[in-house]
Amino acid sequence: MEARPSVLMAEVRRKVPLVHHITNYVTVNDCANICICAGGSPVMTDAIEDVPEMVSIASATVLNIGTLNPRTVESMLAAARTAKAKGIPVILDPVGAGATSYRTKVTERLMSFRPEVIKGNAGEIGVLSGLGGEVKGVDSHGSKDQAESTRALAERMGCVVASTGKVDYVSDGKTTLRLTNGSGYMEKVSGTGCMASSVVGCYAGACGATVESIASAITALNVAAEIAERSCRGPGTFKPALLDALDALDTETIDSAARWEEI
Amino acid sequence: MEARPSVLMAEVRRKVPLVHHITNYVTVNDCANICICAGGSPVMTDAIEDVPEMVSIASATVLNIGTLNPRTVESMLAAARTAKAKGIPVILDPVGAGATSYRTKVTERLMSFRPEVIKGNAGEIGVLSGLGGEVKGVDSHGSKDQAESTRALAERMGCVVASTGKVDYVSDGKTTLRLTNGSGYMEKVSGTGCMASSVVGCYAGACGATVESIASAITALNVAAEIAERSCRGPGTFKPALLDALDALDTETIDSAARWEEI
Amino acid sequence: MEARPSVLMAEVRRKVPLVHHITNYVTVNDCANICICAGGSPVMTDAIEDVPEMVSIASATVLNIGTLNPRTVESMLAAARTAKAKGIPVILDPVGAGATSYRTKVTERLMSFRPEVIKGNAGEIGVLSGLGGEVKGVDSHGSKDQAESTRALAERMGCVVASTGKVDYVSDGKTTLRLTNGSGYMEKVSGTGCMASSVVGCYAGACGATVESIASAITALNVAAEIAERSCRGPGTFKPALLDALDALDTETIDSAARWEEI
Repeated sequence: MEARPSVLMAEVRRKVPLVHHITNYVTVNDCANICICAGGSPVMTDAIEDVPEMVSIASATVLNIGTLNPRTVESMLAAARTAKAKGIPVILDPVGAGATSYRTKVTERLMSFRPEVIKGNAGEIGVLSGLGGEVKGVDSHGSKDQAESTRALAERMGCVVASTGKVDYVSDGKTTLRLTNGSGYMEKVSGTGCMASSVVGCYAGACGATVESIASAITALNVAAEIAERSCRGPGTFKPALLDALDALDTETIDSAARWEEI
Repeated sequence: MEARPSVLMAEVRRKVPLVHHITNYVTVNDCANICICAGGSPVMTDAIEDVPEMVSIASATVLNIGTLNPRTVESMLAAARTAKAKGIPVILDPVGAGATSYRTKVTERLMSFRPEVIKGNAGEIGVLSGLGGEVKGVDSHGSKDQAESTRALAERMGCVVASTGKVDYVSDGKTTLRLTNGSGYMEKVSGTGCMASSVVGCYAGACGATVESIASAITALNVAAEIAERSCRGPGTFKPALLDALDALDTETIDSAARWEEI
Repeated sequence: MEARPSVLMAEVRRKVPLVHHITNYVTVNDCANICICAGGSPVMTDAIEDVPEMVSIASATVLNIGTLNPRTVESMLAAARTAKAKGIPVILDPVGAGATSYRTKVTERLMSFRPEVIKGNAGEIGVLSGLGGEVKGVDSHGSKDQAESTRALAERMGCVVASTGKVDYVSDGKTTLRLTNGSGYMEKVSGTGCMASSVVGCYAGACGATVESIASAITALNVAAEIAERSCRGPGTFKPALLDALDALDTETIDSAARWEEI
């Protein structure tokens, strides 16, 4: 498939991938709605009685540890197990890994299933790469070298890694892209990182977990954020505007606005 | 009570029914807010230690299995038991019944309590009626004969059944209404089905679970959606506009806009 | 520190306090976003495996029993224990205390840890003060003497108590303030009380749990609500406008708009 973002976006909209989520209860509604606006169909279920069957009919599963607990961790492990057995891509969002030992430990257990994509903020990816990063609560305070930690983790895990922040990096260990779209409002709204993971789930589910696919997902959200920034009046009105903008995003706009380069 | 929607709407606003919910964590906030805008007072609690006492003081209880788990299923059963003992109407929203066996099984257990209202999308009602329907994730992909599955399930269960989609049907097995208000945006926002169940809870709680009462609840939401569609700029701004419109809905508007017919 | 609200607001924004929450899944997203707009950094986690470590790095912990269950109650007790050991202020929001015996009992257990702040609506504070109050569901229907119940509970508990309603009172048992900012829309939106507790968490975390600090937190939200009321078109658009207004609130506006008096 051609790597232009518009081509991948059209593929997502054509396939309407069912994206299963086990995610936190803080931003779950935003994840569901951004998934619809990206072109996917979201389903959230976290009961181990329900997860394997639901994952089996899904195009991707997003595992976000934002508000984890032992019951949902078991369900995440079951989701990962089913997905790997069925060849369904797993997207891991290790929210707060590095902030507490429980989160770091659960992340390691989930990483042992070899997710197709790991998407975190710069601090989380820094911690997981072993190159260092600071995570306070669930907010990242940067990492020494965001590009290198993204590349190193991707290489070690043999998967695609996305590290978000003022600048975003996506790497599969060989190709590393630097993405420079986005809006400062994304840091003023809870859950824009979780929403990015949901959009990544749509693209991985419809187009596969390639560097270009994941970069297109993040760029679609970031370009929508740039559009939303122009029409909103603050962080409260930014969120509905972001959903509107992603839903309305067209081929010409995403291709002309997308800014990424290989490094 | 006269069956004009405005008369039932006025009754809801006059009584401000306390509507207990055990619902999913994806759209629960929207359920709470739409309940207020419909004229009710929402309360959400799912601990079995808390549920019987809370249901006892409520006017209706809404059981929505969107993100069920064994703990909350037990609480739903307790809510249904208390409600039946006290004569409080139970509204069942069998989200995703037919998509997984766990959801179908839990729905059957809840149906054994004989809820006063079952409100699902066309696919779910199709599955539960035994006439067939397709449910993928939590989205419905239609049913062969939505009107007949609605009527048949209502007759078999001796309750009011509402089946939502591009067109909505409400039946008690004898009278079946076809409702044609609504907006295409309702499919672009997660949780409009759940919100419909919450509004149904308000009307069942204040006016009883008749065909006209449930049809008025769904029509109030649908007419508000038509108004919201005119002022929004996409699915993100549609949701706040929907809350505004339902809150502001007046007697003349609902009666002149309502479109339903007996079939 | 000077007690003008603007001085405390600036301190919150300078320190960006990490505010840990164990709160209900109904309004948690609003709590996270209002916390950011108030100047803080929210983190939500309720697993006992995670809570003590997260509370240890936080500036305050907000315990809101809106949708409690035995698992999260244990986590709330652990959060309170850790916070007290580390000198981190605990804010208790006893949602629905008085409505059911389970809620009242859990509130008493949490009160035994001597929270620095108890913030409830007039009915809840009335019940907890022993002077009486009516709580139906999670809505308050007033108390006989809101000022006196606020003062009495503060005196007995040796903490700061805030009681919200059409008028708000804040007391430490000696000084009692009467706050008269706010908007009628706050009663038409689910969770404005929870949001107030999150803002109180920011101010208690950054400025300490004094009467002036807590009164400034509530006043900041109330003044933002007055501004939001002017630009919204109903309860749906009020909420994003409230977030925008709190984020944009400036020194001159809060000081000139703030209305409080000692009684």
